[in-house]
Amino acid sequence: MVWALVDAPADPALVPDLKQDLLMTYQPPVRDHVFLLRDVLDIDQHGQLPAFADASFDLVEQILEGAAKFTGEVLAPLNGVGDKHGCVWNPDNSVTTPPGFKDAYKQLCDGGWTGLGSDPAYGGQGLPFVVGLAFSEMSSSANMAFSMYPGLAHGAYSAIHYGGSDVQKDTYLPKMVSGEWTGTMNLTEPHCGTDLGLLRTKAVPNGDGTYKISGQKIWISAGEHDMADNIVHLVLARIEGAPAGVKGISLFIVPKFLPKADGSVGERNTGVQCVGLEEKMGIHGNATCVMQYDDAQGWLIGEENSGLKLMFVMMNEARLGVGLQGVAQAEAAYQAAAAFAKDRLQGRSLTGPKNPDGPADPIIVHPDVRRMLLESKALIEGGRAFLFWTALHGDLAHGHPDEAVRAKAEDYMGLMTPVLKGYLTDKGFKVCSDAMQVHGGSGFTEHFPASQYLRDVRIALIYEGTNGIQALDLVGRKLAAKGGRAVMSFFQELDQFVGENDGDEALKPFIEALAAVKAQLQDGTMWLMQNGLQNPDNAGAASTDYMHLFGLTGLAYMWALMAKAANAKIAAGDSDPFYGAKLVTGRYFIERVLPDAGAHLAKLKTGSATLMALPAEAF
Amino acid sequence: MVWALVDAPADPALVPDLKQDLLMTYQPPVRDHVFLLRDVLDIDQHGQLPAFADASFDLVEQILEGAAKFTGEVLAPLNGVGDKHGCVWNPDNSVTTPPGFKDAYKQLCDGGWTGLGSDPAYGGQGLPFVVGLAFSEMSSSANMAFSMYPGLAHGAYSAIHYGGSDVQKDTYLPKMVSGEWTGTMNLTEPHCGTDLGLLRTKAVPNGDGTYKISGQKIWISAGEHDMADNIVHLVLARIEGAPAGVKGISLFIVPKFLPKADGSVGERNTGVQCVGLEEKMGIHGNATCVMQYDDAQGWLIGEENSGLKLMFVMMNEARLGVGLQGVAQAEAAYQAAAAFAKDRLQGRSLTGPKNPDGPADPIIVHPDVRRMLLESKALIEGGRAFLFWTALHGDLAHGHPDEAVRAKAEDYMGLMTPVLKGYLTDKGFKVCSDAMQVHGGSGFTEHFPASQYLRDVRIALIYEGTNGIQALDLVGRKLAAKGGRAVMSFFQELDQFVGENDGDEALKPFIEALAAVKAQLQDGTMWLMQNGLQNPDNAGAASTDYMHLFGLTGLAYMWALMAKAANAKIAAGDSDPFYGAKLVTGRYFIERVLPDAGAHLAKLKTGSATLMALPAEAF
Repeated sequence: MVWALVDAPADPALVPDLKQDLLMTYQPPVRDHVFLLRDVLDIDQHGQLPAFADASFDLVEQILEGAAKFTGEVLAPLNGVGDKHGCVWNPDNSVTTPPGFKDAYKQLCDGGWTGLGSDPAYGGQGLPFVVGLAFSEMSSSANMAFSMYPGLAHGAYSAIHYGGSDVQKDTYLPKMVSGEWTGTMNLTEPHCGTDLGLLRTKAVPNGDGTYKISGQKIWISAGEHDMADNIVHLVLARIEGAPAGVKGISLFIVPKFLPKADGSVGERNTGVQCVGLEEKMGIHGNATCVMQYDDAQGWLIGEENSGLKLMFVMMNEARLGVGLQGVAQAEAAYQAAAAFAKDRLQGRSLTGPKNPDGPADPIIVHPDVRRMLLESKALIEGGRAFLFWTALHGDLAHGHPDEAVRAKAEDYMGLMTPVLKGYLTDKGFKVCSDAMQVHGGSGFTEHFPASQYLRDVRIALIYEGTNGIQALDLVGRKLAAKGGRAVMSFFQELDQFVGENDGDEALKPFIEALAAVKAQLQDGTMWLMQNGLQNPDNAGAASTDYMHLFGLTGLAYMWALMAKAANAKIAAGDSDPFYGAKLVTGRYFIERVLPDAGAHLAKLKTGSATLMALPAEAF
Repeated sequence: MVWALVDAPADPALVPDLKQDLLMTYQPPVRDHVFLLRDVLDIDQHGQLPAFADASFDLVEQILEGAAKFTGEVLAPLNGVGDKHGCVWNPDNSVTTPPGFKDAYKQLCDGGWTGLGSDPAYGGQGLPFVVGLAFSEMSSSANMAFSMYPGLAHGAYSAIHYGGSDVQKDTYLPKMVSGEWTGTMNLTEPHCGTDLGLLRTKAVPNGDGTYKISGQKIWISAGEHDMADNIVHLVLARIEGAPAGVKGISLFIVPKFLPKADGSVGERNTGVQCVGLEEKMGIHGNATCVMQYDDAQGWLIGEENSGLKLMFVMMNEARLGVGLQGVAQAEAAYQAAAAFAKDRLQGRSLTGPKNPDGPADPIIVHPDVRRMLLESKALIEGGRAFLFWTALHGDLAHGHPDEAVRAKAEDYMGLMTPVLKGYLTDKGFKVCSDAMQVHGGSGFTEHFPASQYLRDVRIALIYEGTNGIQALDLVGRKLAAKGGRAVMSFFQELDQFVGENDGDEALKPFIEALAAVKAQLQDGTMWLMQNGLQNPDNAGAASTDYMHLFGLTGLAYMWALMAKAANAKIAAGDSDPFYGAKLVTGRYFIERVLPDAGAHLAKLKTGSATLMALPAEAF
C-alpha cells in the first residue's frame, strides 16, 4: 500500500521562483565530523584499541570524504524518489523498491560500506564503531528509508555474531557483511508491540534441529525487497510448551531462501511470505511488511527461551541508530531551511535594509528565523557530539585493555542509549518542524523537501520502543542497575571536568552552565530515588521529563567539551571561522535551550497524584 | 496534483485487531461548550446585545446539539475520504472535490449553517460570534479540509460587508450567506507571501468602473471546486501607476461567473482559471489552487490603494479561525488517542494489574500515557476557553451600548488574535503529535486517523501569517498600540480577579499560579519596553517566547475562571463528575504546563546579541 503521485497538473514550472538548487541541499557535514573525531574526541589517542590500530585519524578522514561522496551523490538524489514512488507490493508477494534503489544498493556493497565496523573474521573492515556511526549519519541524512535496509541487516548480523553457533556464523555472516544478504527483526504482532510477553507466533520442533515457525508479524522494516539475494529474518517465537510471558520466547533464523551447504542460495523457504505493505506517513522508500509465517523452516539461535536477551543485542544497537536518525534528519532538514532562509527575499531587517539593492532582504536577517536555525544547529551539533562520544565508549567497552575502563564504558552505553534514542528523536522532530516553519508555505508543499523530512523523522519517536518506553527504561532499569553505578560515574566525571576547568576564563559560561544543570539532574535523580521506589507511578510520571533533563545535561557537557576544543584551536592561532561559529552556537545552547532544564525539574517533582486522579472514563 | 491511494495490498483485514470503532471517534464536545457558554461566560447576562437578544442559552444549546449532529454524522465520516482521495484537477481547469463533499456541502447550506453569524439584512441568522465559533470548532474537528470552503467564504463575506458598495453587498452577500456562492482570499504570489509590498498582479482600468486583472496567485485555498454555483475571488492587485510597496495595493472582486442584474449567475469570467493544485502534506480534501488571472474582469472594493486595510478585515477573522483549527484538530486527535489508550492492552500497571482477567492492562494505566493525554486535555480545554472568551469580546466590541466596554473589547481582540493564532496552533501541533505517540506504531500507519490530524494541523502554524509573524505582530504592533492600553487593561483585569478571589481557599492554587505567571508576563513586557525600542532586533529575538508566555498567562486565567465556575457548581451540590475532572485537569495545567513560563521568560531576556552574531554564511 503506497501513496504515489498519480497526477501532476501543478507543474513546478508554474511556480517560477522555485529554484532547483533549493530542493537538494544536503551536504554531508564532514567538517563537523573532523572536529569531533580529531579535536574533541582525539581518536588517535586510542591506538592501543584493536579497532583503532589501523584507523589513524588521517585514514578516517579519507573514509569520511569517501562516505560524503557516496551518500551525497548516490543516496541523496534518491530520497525524494523513494518518497514519491514508495515500495510496491506485487501479487506474487514480492516487493519492488523505488527506481534507483537497487543500483544504489549494489554501489553500497561494492564500496564496502556494509561492513565498515564488522568483524574481519567474516570479511568486515573492523573499523571503530564511532567511524561506522559517522557513515550511518550521512547515509541516514541522505536517505533514511534507504539506509534502513543495511541498518537492519547490521542489527541481525550483530545478534547472530553474538548468539549464533559457529555453523550459523559461518553460513550467514560473510553474506551479511558483504551485503549480498540483508536481515530483519521480527518482533511485533498485531496485538503485541511493547509487551512482547503476549506474542503468539509458535515454533514446533521438526526433530532434526529445525523448527516450523507459524504466526503473523507486522511492521517488519525491509521485510521483503528486490535488492539482495536473500533476507535473513530473525523471528521471536514461542516453542510449543514454553513458559508464558517473556520467559518463553526464543529467537529463530528464518531465511527467505534456505542456504545450501556451499553457502549459496538454495530453495525458497515458502512458509515465509510478505503478504502486504503498510501504508504510512513517511519512510515510503522502506518496505514496512506484514510477514506471514506458515510452517516456515527456522533454526534456533542460542538457548531455548533466551530470545529476548538476544533480541536486545539488536535492539540496543538499533536504539542508538534511531537516536542517530533523529540527528541525521534534523541535519538534512536544517540544511534545507538554512539554504531557503539565505535565498528567500521577504521583508526588511528590523534594523534597516541589509540587501538595499534587492527588492527585500533574505529572511535570515530576521531574529526569529535565526532563532529557529540556531536552535536547530545547537541541538544537532550537541546531539551529534553526544552520539559520537557514546559510540567511542562502545569502542572502549569492546576493546580497552583495562577492565575498569571497559566496565565504565559498558555502564555508559546502557545509561545513555535510552537518552540518546528518546531525547535526540524528540528534538530531531522539533528541528524538522522548525525547518518546515522557516520555509513558510513552501514547506507544506511537497515541492520542497521539508515535508518529507518531517514525515520521515516522526517514526523515530516510535519504533524500537516508543520514547515513553525509553524514559521508563532509563528511570526503571538503567538508573538503578548495579546500585546506580553508571549515573554516579557520570556525575563524578562532570564534577571532575568542572573542577579541572574552574579557572578557565574563556570557558567560564560553559562550566557554570554545566555545573548548574548537573545539580538539577542530581536533584531530579534524588527525587526519583526517594519517591520512585515508594510509588512506582511517581517514577513513571517523572520519566519523560527526567529523560529530557538528562539529555540537556549530556548536551551541556558536550558543548563544554566542544567549546574547550574550539578555544584551544583559536588560542593556537587557527583562524578557521568554524571555531568562532561553534562558540556562538554553544552560547545559544546555554542561553536559550538550557533554561528548559528548570521546567523539566519542576514538572518531574510534581509526582503522580494529579496524573492518576482521573478515572479512565473521564478521558 | 494529489496523493492518492493507488494500491492496497495490506488490507486492514490483515490486521485482525484493528477495530473499526477506533477509526472514527470524534464526538463534538457539547458538554464542554455548554460549560463555557453557560457556567463560565454566562451568555444570558448579555441579553442587551442585539446578537444575544434572540439567543438565550437554551436556544444556543439546541443549536449546539444540531451542530454536533451535523458535524459528527455528516462531516466526520468524510474526513478520511478527503485525505485519501484528495481533490482532482481536470484538464478543463475544473476541480473535483472528494466523494461526498458536494452532497455534504448541500446539507451544510440547507441546514442554514453557512449564515449563523451573518447579517440578517442579507439573510443571515445574526447569532453571536461566540456561537458561530462553537459551530466552527466542531466543523473543523470533524473535517478541517471541508470546513475551509465555508470558512474562506465567510472571510470574503466579511470584507465585502465591511468595505463593499451597496450594489456589491446586494449582489454578493445574500448568495454568500446562503452558501450558494463561496469566496476566496488571493494574496500570495510565488515571490511574495509575508511581504505583500512585493506583489505584482496588476489591474488596468477599463474606463467603465471595471478593471482587467492579470497575474498569478498561489496557495489559494478553495480557489476552484464543484460545490457552489459561483466563487467570489477577492484579489489583491496593483492599479497601473499606483505607488510601490503596500501603499499601492487595492482589493478587487473577481467572480468566477459574472453576476447578472437579477443576481443570478451569468457568463464565465474566462480570465480567471485554476491552472493547477498544490501537492501538499495535508488538508488533501481542500483544493489549494494556483490561480491564473489574464485580463480577468474585476471590480474595485472600497478606495484605490486601500486594499491592505480591507484584506486585514478578512485576515484578522481568519487568524482567529486558524487558532481555532489548532484546538479543533487537537480535540479530534486527543479523542482518538484517548479511545486507543482505553482499548489497547499492553503491559501491566507499575502498581499491579488493573485488568487482572485480561492478557494485559489498557495502556491508559501508565502515568506517561496519562501525561500526554492530560497535557492535551489541559491545552485543549484552556485553549477553547481562551477562544470563546475572546470571541465574546468580539460580540461586545460590535454590540455593547457602552463605548468604554466596546473600546476595551476591541483592544482585546487586537491583542489576543496573534496569541490565539500562534500559541494555540503551536500547541495544537504538539497535541496531535502526542496523540500519534499514544497510538505507538499504529499512529504512524494511515489505517488510524492520527497521521491525518498531524499532517492537517501542520499548515495552521504557517498560513494567515506564520507563527513568527504573529509573534512580531504582538510585540511590534499590538503591545505598543494606543500607548500599550490593551495590555494594561489585561493586567488590570488579572489583578482585579486575583484581588477579588484572594480569600477563596478552594481556588487558591489557581489564584497563586495566575498571580505568578502574570508577574512573569509583566516582567517580560517591561523587558521588551526597555530593550525592544533601543534595538528592534531584541524585540524580534524575544517575540516567540513572549507570545508563548502570553499564551500561558491567558490559559492560566481561563483555568482560574473555569475552576471558579466548577467550584461553584460543586458547592451548589451538582454531582456531575465533569466538574471534578475539570479541576484535576486545571491542576495538571498548573503543575505541568505552567513551569514553561519561567523558561520562556529566561530565554526572551537573553536578547539578540547571540542570535545576530553569526554571519549568514555560517549557517
